[in-house]
Amino acid sequence: MPCVEILAVGTELLLGQLVDTNSAYIAKSLADGGIDVYGEITVGDNRERIAAAMRGALDRADGVITSGGLGPTIDDLTKEAACDALGLEADLDEESLRDIEDAFAKLGRVMRENNRKQAYLPRGAHVLRNGVGTAPGFIAFRGDGKFIASMPGVPREMKPMMQEQLLPWLRDHFSVHQAVHTRTLHTVNLAESEIDHRIDDLFRNLSNPKIAVLAHGRLCDVKIMAKAQSDQEARDLIASVEADVLRRLSGHVYGVDEQTLPGAIHALLQQSCRTVGLAESCTGGSIAAALTSVPGSSKSFMGGVVAYDNCVKTEVLGVQQSTLDRAGAVSEETSIEMARGVCERLGADIGVATTGIAGPSGGTPEKPVGLVWIAIAHADKRRAVKFEFLGDRAAIQERATIAALALLWRTLQE
Amino acid sequence: MPCVEILAVGTELLLGQLVDTNSAYIAKSLADGGIDVYGEITVGDNRERIAAAMRGALDRADGVITSGGLGPTIDDLTKEAACDALGLEADLDEESLRDIEDAFAKLGRVMRENNRKQAYLPRGAHVLRNGVGTAPGFIAFRGDGKFIASMPGVPREMKPMMQEQLLPWLRDHFSVHQAVHTRTLHTVNLAESEIDHRIDDLFRNLSNPKIAVLAHGRLCDVKIMAKAQSDQEARDLIASVEADVLRRLSGHVYGVDEQTLPGAIHALLQQSCRTVGLAESCTGGSIAAALTSVPGSSKSFMGGVVAYDNCVKTEVLGVQQSTLDRAGAVSEETSIEMARGVCERLGADIGVATTGIAGPSGGTPEKPVGLVWIAIAHADKRRAVKFEFLGDRAAIQERATIAALALLWRTLQE
Repeated sequence: MPCVEILAVGTELLLGQLVDTNSAYIAKSLADGGIDVYGEITVGDNRERIAAAMRGALDRADGVITSGGLGPTIDDLTKEAACDALGLEADLDEESLRDIEDAFAKLGRVMRENNRKQAYLPRGAHVLRNGVGTAPGFIAFRGDGKFIASMPGVPREMKPMMQEQLLPWLRDHFSVHQAVHTRTLHTVNLAESEIDHRIDDLFRNLSNPKIAVLAHGRLCDVKIMAKAQSDQEARDLIASVEADVLRRLSGHVYGVDEQTLPGAIHALLQQSCRTVGLAESCTGGSIAAALTSVPGSSKSFMGGVVAYDNCVKTEVLGVQQSTLDRAGAVSEETSIEMARGVCERLGADIGVATTGIAGPSGGTPEKPVGLVWIAIAHADKRRAVKFEFLGDRAAIQERATIAALALLWRTLQE
Repeated sequence: MPCVEILAVGTELLLGQLVDTNSAYIAKSLADGGIDVYGEITVGDNRERIAAAMRGALDRADGVITSGGLGPTIDDLTKEAACDALGLEADLDEESLRDIEDAFAKLGRVMRENNRKQAYLPRGAHVLRNGVGTAPGFIAFRGDGKFIASMPGVPREMKPMMQEQLLPWLRDHFSVHQAVHTRTLHTVNLAESEIDHRIDDLFRNLSNPKIAVLAHGRLCDVKIMAKAQSDQEARDLIASVEADVLRRLSGHVYGVDEQTLPGAIHALLQQSCRTVGLAESCTGGSIAAALTSVPGSSKSFMGGVVAYDNCVKTEVLGVQQSTLDRAGAVSEETSIEMARGVCERLGADIGVATTGIAGPSGGTPEKPVGLVWIAIAHADKRRAVKFEFLGDRAAIQERATIAALALLWRTLQE
């Protein structure tokens, strides 16, 4: 079995100022791609130590995959260390220089000499182009064929480079033809213990495909993983189990693999040719941000009103002042008037409204911090649901956002 | 300087199923406690590999601190590996056995034989008692005085053990009596390379306090870290350098330590008794979500309109249909009318508007994906700035959000 080590570079990691999420991402991509990871190492921004870690890793494994230390500053030393570890000089890569110049031109910013340094790569290296930032990655080789593959540390730059360039290269380099296939079913409104209860026997008895449950609050994922000689065989293994799992979790699975809850909502909206509008108070724009994260969301998302001040609730959304006086801003009545108001105001088919107390202040014995009303209005129907969320301000805002999306998804399914 | 390495044990880490947050926590505790970390390693649940990693780390450093692999199951092998690496036998520790028996009695669960195994510790080890779970930690010694300190992997058990037992022991063992202090200056609108250019000499020449630059896109942090005999002395060391750094980065530092950019904006708004309203198109509610993440933001944030559909721009914000027809939705004119419109509509003192093409579709040669206009209107002034952001939809939305917050912050300072 081919195997590699993962090396994270950065003094900020050794100081605990930053949690290293890159190594887990790279490890997971390799596992999904059928490549074993022997170990992971983290070193600071020190040329000798980085080079020593690379040499040690190359003794144990077939290659090293690094993230971090490719920036333009004086403490970015991964490339220099890779040259030391492999006994190579660095050459100017003209194509990378043009990429960097283009990026600066597009940003309208002055390119300094230290950015030019980023275009120097170990001699004979295979370039991993960076479509997002300025630092190119590379794969450089030792005489015996072992390699160092280096990627930038910014996750947004590293992730596409890993998926689109490095992983395909690694599978090809190692001739990994065993197919590994994974399907992830995304559920909403089921506790991890409830999922456990429903699929416990599959969890215990199956080994290929294997099942795993990953919880993220109200959203839980069920992973089904299979290995086989061919991709089709692996897919078939999964399909038989997937149907069973779907049946047991019926009504709670909003999507598979890359599908997101906002994405599933847009798909249902487009199927039924309906549009949605939002009236957010305590969620402060988070539901709108979630819905607009989906490409093409402008087809079914009209817009939203973040009605933080009460005068926005009355002036823009048409909530009655008498309702605010009688029931208060955080109430069933106000949430319903907000949902109806946004439908009328924006000409949307469905209106979703939130109003609550995110804290840390503003709570009372009758209306404590964490109390949130979520309302949905469509056609001549309206419903409002009361929630009491635990946690700090950020947790309450996030939980209310997910609850509102879940309620909208369920409404669209009815 | 005494220095240690950190070793995380667990196959789930090498598969990327779990992000290792323990190592960052341990690293930060050590940094705050004045102990240097030479490197971090992660290995799977394999006795030989764990022992080899421990031996390698003890060659380089004065001690190894491990987390994980102390549980009762067959793949918990850290203790066995530590015995191998140190050439020690394991003895039953009566006190630990009683702790485990008590824990099971308290939980009302049956104690199994494999839990008894947890009470065996390397001969002569100093016990780190576990007040939360069943696995005791330990500090075991090699003939030359170097040590392996092992803690459980469950963060809830590891953290108090680190703070209350291991860290005090380490500071005592290494006779570390010095104080460590850190200040973080948060900057906006300065590229990492530009900061480097401005403080390069400090970066090169200073060793105490030390300076580090951490980039997160348009937001860069400059950390100043000092060690001294007393806390006051460490603070004084920082103060002298901080004034110099602030002068060099003048006009770009929005806050220190826990301050966030939205928090700095709210502080400036409240100082000047002004309110803000948002008109977001391409940022889709993200600016509102950022501003409402701050406790007490309702004092200066009126609300916002997410004007995704053009009819929301005209109907709610009062953008002229003729402006949309002539200049288009993504234009200087439209952005300014949106910013003015939201001021009027919500009664806010300052209006901020975004309109752009987040992609992936919708771009043209004249108006490519990534083009974003950001406008600010206040009193009778208005300004609009054009940006061309790189990256995918999420990156463009995030960069536009930060750029809008940065522009608002700068406007409030004028």
